[in-house]
Amino acid sequence: MTFDAMAFSATDHAMMAQALRLAERGAYTTKPNPMVGCVIAHGDEVVGEGWHAIAGGPHAEVVALQAAGDRARGATVYVTLEPCAHTGRTGPCADALIAAGVGRVIAAMRDPFPQVDGAGFERLRAAGIVVGHGLMAAAARRLNHGFLSRIERRRPWVRVKLAMSLDGRTALANGDSKWISGEASRRDVMRWRARAGALLTGAGTVLADDPQLTVRFDDDTPFVPPLRVVLDPGLATVGRGHVRAGDASTLYFHAPDAKPPRMFDAAHAAVGMRDGLLDLDAVLQALAAREINEVQVEAGATLAGALLRAGLVDEVLLYVAPILLGAEARPLFDGLRIDDMAQRLHLRTVETRHLGDDLRLLLRPEREA
Amino acid sequence: MTFDAMAFSATDHAMMAQALRLAERGAYTTKPNPMVGCVIAHGDEVVGEGWHAIAGGPHAEVVALQAAGDRARGATVYVTLEPCAHTGRTGPCADALIAAGVGRVIAAMRDPFPQVDGAGFERLRAAGIVVGHGLMAAAARRLNHGFLSRIERRRPWVRVKLAMSLDGRTALANGDSKWISGEASRRDVMRWRARAGALLTGAGTVLADDPQLTVRFDDDTPFVPPLRVVLDPGLATVGRGHVRAGDASTLYFHAPDAKPPRMFDAAHAAVGMRDGLLDLDAVLQALAAREINEVQVEAGATLAGALLRAGLVDEVLLYVAPILLGAEARPLFDGLRIDDMAQRLHLRTVETRHLGDDLRLLLRPEREA
Repeated sequence: MTFDAMAFSATDHAMMAQALRLAERGAYTTKPNPMVGCVIAHGDEVVGEGWHAIAGGPHAEVVALQAAGDRARGATVYVTLEPCAHTGRTGPCADALIAAGVGRVIAAMRDPFPQVDGAGFERLRAAGIVVGHGLMAAAARRLNHGFLSRIERRRPWVRVKLAMSLDGRTALANGDSKWISGEASRRDVMRWRARAGALLTGAGTVLADDPQLTVRFDDDTPFVPPLRVVLDPGLATVGRGHVRAGDASTLYFHAPDAKPPRMFDAAHAAVGMRDGLLDLDAVLQALAAREINEVQVEAGATLAGALLRAGLVDEVLLYVAPILLGAEARPLFDGLRIDDMAQRLHLRTVETRHLGDDLRLLLRPEREA
Repeated sequence: MTFDAMAFSATDHAMMAQALRLAERGAYTTKPNPMVGCVIAHGDEVVGEGWHAIAGGPHAEVVALQAAGDRARGATVYVTLEPCAHTGRTGPCADALIAAGVGRVIAAMRDPFPQVDGAGFERLRAAGIVVGHGLMAAAARRLNHGFLSRIERRRPWVRVKLAMSLDGRTALANGDSKWISGEASRRDVMRWRARAGALLTGAGTVLADDPQLTVRFDDDTPFVPPLRVVLDPGLATVGRGHVRAGDASTLYFHAPDAKPPRMFDAAHAAVGMRDGLLDLDAVLQALAAREINEVQVEAGATLAGALLRAGLVDEVLLYVAPILLGAEARPLFDGLRIDDMAQRLHLRTVETRHLGDDLRLLLRPEREA
């Protein structure tokens, strides 16, 4: 039997599913690290559980090993990502697993992070531990699509959040967009914001809606505040509005020739222009370089449309309220330039959910075949 | 115990639910009559079932009595609508029930049709039969909202069918609307058409899309073809397109000053103009006078918007395809004149369903409180 051909049992699946659920507990706090969950078991008996809660804190495997204590010896370790082999902010998990005398390690997927990338598996095997991987790999990839995008594509996962009326309008002609979606949807948006490493908007939205772009929970759920990112070619909005208020950093991207005003103390970076807008590829690469895994775009039809047209949207999070705003109201995406039905853009509906009176759709643009 | 305070048992509910399901079998064929279902039972034992299949054919009660034969004696009769007391195309059902010696009649609702309207109950009681009504009345009303609308409001129930992209567009700017919704949705539309007494469209849609507006089923499900109705103030479309092809009648409404061309052999009627459009109230009253219970509107944004603004839309049947057509494409409703968020129109989502890749929403405009 080769390692990769290891047959996984129903118990293996159940244990890995639990490890995936544990991993998700770190959704708001592990960034820029991936979410990782770990279950240690003898057969059906779980002897330790753990998840990676915060960057710089102990890894999932270490937490689970501590919980298992002596009972880790000879056990099977289920972990949602390949155990690390390098010394980062913490020691290598592979060594800890070896030291604990575990019998078998099953990982959902290999870690593409250059300092791991198979080295964790190698080290475990060299120590005589049976290693299997690929169990529930699709779910594990979905869990960390942000981290994986940053490592593999060198840009963050891009989710465009939009709230629209039933007739596809995000605001009235005068720009008013208050109270389109309901209370349950607005609370839900906060949870998606908390997952993101950055919240991206444009100068137009800052001027029109003056969003604060912070996470506001009703309770004390911990989270790492996402970076607020404003695309403002001429730096026309600096010092204006709520986008610098609250407990989160703000980063402005501007055109090369824009001059930050005197006394301007926010982070800012120049990127080139393309088609009258900031170069969106360059913006996303710059965010990946700052270890942003997941970007949530909360902007108007111009920026949302430009990202979509550039093929840079991975996911659309769409709240649909059962109201009508009429044909004069503002559209969902601008500038798609569809003159022929063959040019229509297709999306795949990943999930549909009711939130109060609203409908929430999660969709993925379909790439050209 | 008064009749109206009769306590209904779980068995009563189960029997009436079955009667409602039976009634629905007549959905495509009973028009202009209401759908009616009937179950005859002794306790839990069903001894006869029936439904009204076609106008002029036997009523549900008569079919069920025939099935029950002698076992109808002393039985309880569950019927979704008050048994008739008048001789229409068939004899009065109340008399048939009396003749069969049934012990108890439970109706979901009173029939507001002027020649019934309580007279059926009276005749049964006068014969010593125990009568109860109001069991599952809301479901029974829903079943026949078309018939009830015609009798009570003297206009048909109006359902507006629309197919749109995710960004709320029904056609490209050039008018192309082919292949917005998928195959499953297009089949579903046929079932809704078959329920309708009339399919209503405007001259613009006839010119742009050239619809045939007929019911086309994949199998031999029987149906009564809905009347095709074209609102064409100037009779500009007569003799054009497919709206007169196929096995269904076509009726044109036109402005008082429009002159039907020589050799024009289709039905036509003049109604007054209001706000540059045919008087929609007058059109609907004329359709009710022709015994149309349910109208399905398949038209463009102008007519759909005008009906909505006039408060004449009872139901919106909305197919949402996971595609984007862009901001230049055609809107869902024109002319809503919403300048302020307080003017936004609210709808209530009655049902959400997935059909292939599409989403189907059934919504009701909320009337002002």
